[in-house]
Amino acid sequence: MSQPAVRLMEVGARDGLQNETQILPPSIRAAFIQKLANAGLRHIEAGAFVSPRWVSQMAETDAVLKALPIRDGVTYSVLVPNEHGMAMAIENGCREVAIFTAASETFNRRNINCSIDESLARFEPVIAAAKDNGIRVRGYVSCVLGCPIDGAVPIANVVRVSKRLYHMGCYEISLGDTIGAGVPSDVRNLVSACAKEVPVEQLAAHFHDTWGMAVANCLAALEAGVRAFDSSVSGLGGCPYSPGATGNVATEDLVYLFEGMGLATGIDLESVVNAGDFADQYLGRKTASHVARAWKATHEHASSQYNNTTTNLEDK
Amino acid sequence: MSQPAVRLMEVGARDGLQNETQILPPSIRAAFIQKLANAGLRHIEAGAFVSPRWVSQMAETDAVLKALPIRDGVTYSVLVPNEHGMAMAIENGCREVAIFTAASETFNRRNINCSIDESLARFEPVIAAAKDNGIRVRGYVSCVLGCPIDGAVPIANVVRVSKRLYHMGCYEISLGDTIGAGVPSDVRNLVSACAKEVPVEQLAAHFHDTWGMAVANCLAALEAGVRAFDSSVSGLGGCPYSPGATGNVATEDLVYLFEGMGLATGIDLESVVNAGDFADQYLGRKTASHVARAWKATHEHASSQYNNTTTNLEDK
Repeated sequence: MSQPAVRLMEVGARDGLQNETQILPPSIRAAFIQKLANAGLRHIEAGAFVSPRWVSQMAETDAVLKALPIRDGVTYSVLVPNEHGMAMAIENGCREVAIFTAASETFNRRNINCSIDESLARFEPVIAAAKDNGIRVRGYVSCVLGCPIDGAVPIANVVRVSKRLYHMGCYEISLGDTIGAGVPSDVRNLVSACAKEVPVEQLAAHFHDTWGMAVANCLAALEAGVRAFDSSVSGLGGCPYSPGATGNVATEDLVYLFEGMGLATGIDLESVVNAGDFADQYLGRKTASHVARAWKATHEHASSQYNNTTTNLEDK
Repeated sequence: MSQPAVRLMEVGARDGLQNETQILPPSIRAAFIQKLANAGLRHIEAGAFVSPRWVSQMAETDAVLKALPIRDGVTYSVLVPNEHGMAMAIENGCREVAIFTAASETFNRRNINCSIDESLARFEPVIAAAKDNGIRVRGYVSCVLGCPIDGAVPIANVVRVSKRLYHMGCYEISLGDTIGAGVPSDVRNLVSACAKEVPVEQLAAHFHDTWGMAVANCLAALEAGVRAFDSSVSGLGGCPYSPGATGNVATEDLVYLFEGMGLATGIDLESVVNAGDFADQYLGRKTASHVARAWKATHEHASSQYNNTTTNLEDK
């Protein structure tokens, strides 16, 4: 199989589920992840080694991992907040972990109870342990286009944090518009500034659709040279700090966008729509993906849609 | 007031309402249109002189127009399908009308019961009457990025129809992605091809959000030189031929996009959100605008949102 032109990181089973109210048991999460892999997703966040007291949705991530068969070319990534989480990742044979901080001091204090610099210092032993064990580390930076508490976030902050994470050893920096408030010109300025310090091939776009800009922002990131995108099947998730937040940009919508533009993703749209349905049925929610809705409507009505609907605007 | 950098044509009170099931009386439609004008919209579709037997939502467009005070700088446009509609437009003192055809033969036959060339021939006396009365004519071309019946539509068809309408005397050609299935690369190719025959300043983008691409497609059109955009407050409307169709791209979403990118629209976001609410309350529907949802959530929760929500991912 040829290399995809763009790489999608599926975050629905972690970033997505973590922000849904309903809790899915590990067996269902593992089945969901397998459906995502069957759809052609090659990079899937499978869980988080965080305290179940704080994030009950991610409890028993070890059981999820154990239930996942090893598949050629498929990487399961796990979020780790600290050394304890990293130790669990090693114990569970993870090949990739993700660490996270924010470009906003205030958000970082609210979210992980420490300053940006403290969070980076905390990741040093985490990254060292990862290196010792041949584990890849991906870095998330949140609030790159605004903070829910402080509002505007200087681009210089994002650049500084991204550069630090990159030089600490993260192979990819995921730039997260946590509040989904950025517009394409912001994305261009951001990517262009970050790409001066981190190779653009090592940057990923992680956009939320709260203000309806996510697909346009992904387009702007693409035009600025980004080829890695985080997305969440069915638009699962949201942000507890962002009122009215919809979740991450939907995987289905990005597959439609990129494939439509002739950029291969390696992902089968129908299968990914079905994977989203699977999770949504257990969560009792409706899809937030425009493409999933349109795809289902088109296919459900395919045989009957144009038979009885002659409208005539003529004034006869 | 300086000229806006982009011009928005508000189609919610015509293209939008025409495709909603609920019928609003003329007094409510007029009040709705006035709210849109109060929000800063300067170009508003106010109705259609089509048979109420076929489009009952547009019945009594004359009463709507009579209820609208003349406002400096505000143009109310009315859709006319033929000479009879044009005569009514003249009788009612309209300063602008819109005519419509499609780039797909099949769609045109289903929608207005004639071929593309027949529809163009039918518009010749309409445009002649408009010229005689100093009325501007805007031309709609639908199915520019695909037909719900035939699928792909050759760009050459769109160019041919657009060029014809332009040379017949339309001051602006609105390119409609009726099924909302296009992607940004399609938009670029389309605008670039049409701009060879019609000055790009005379082209408008009319996109539906069925497949979630509308904002990204507007961005692509903007980048290709288009400065006029049709939108519908609250994303009102849809397309009876497009199953699962959401409506036109929401005015709120375009205002947020353009203003965020530093392109003045002359439109006040809060007022346009309120105008959308006004129509939605009468229609008993929820807004389809991401921006309206996020705006309301942000403002409703502004005082309380960050007081009790410290999440802590630390595994303590």
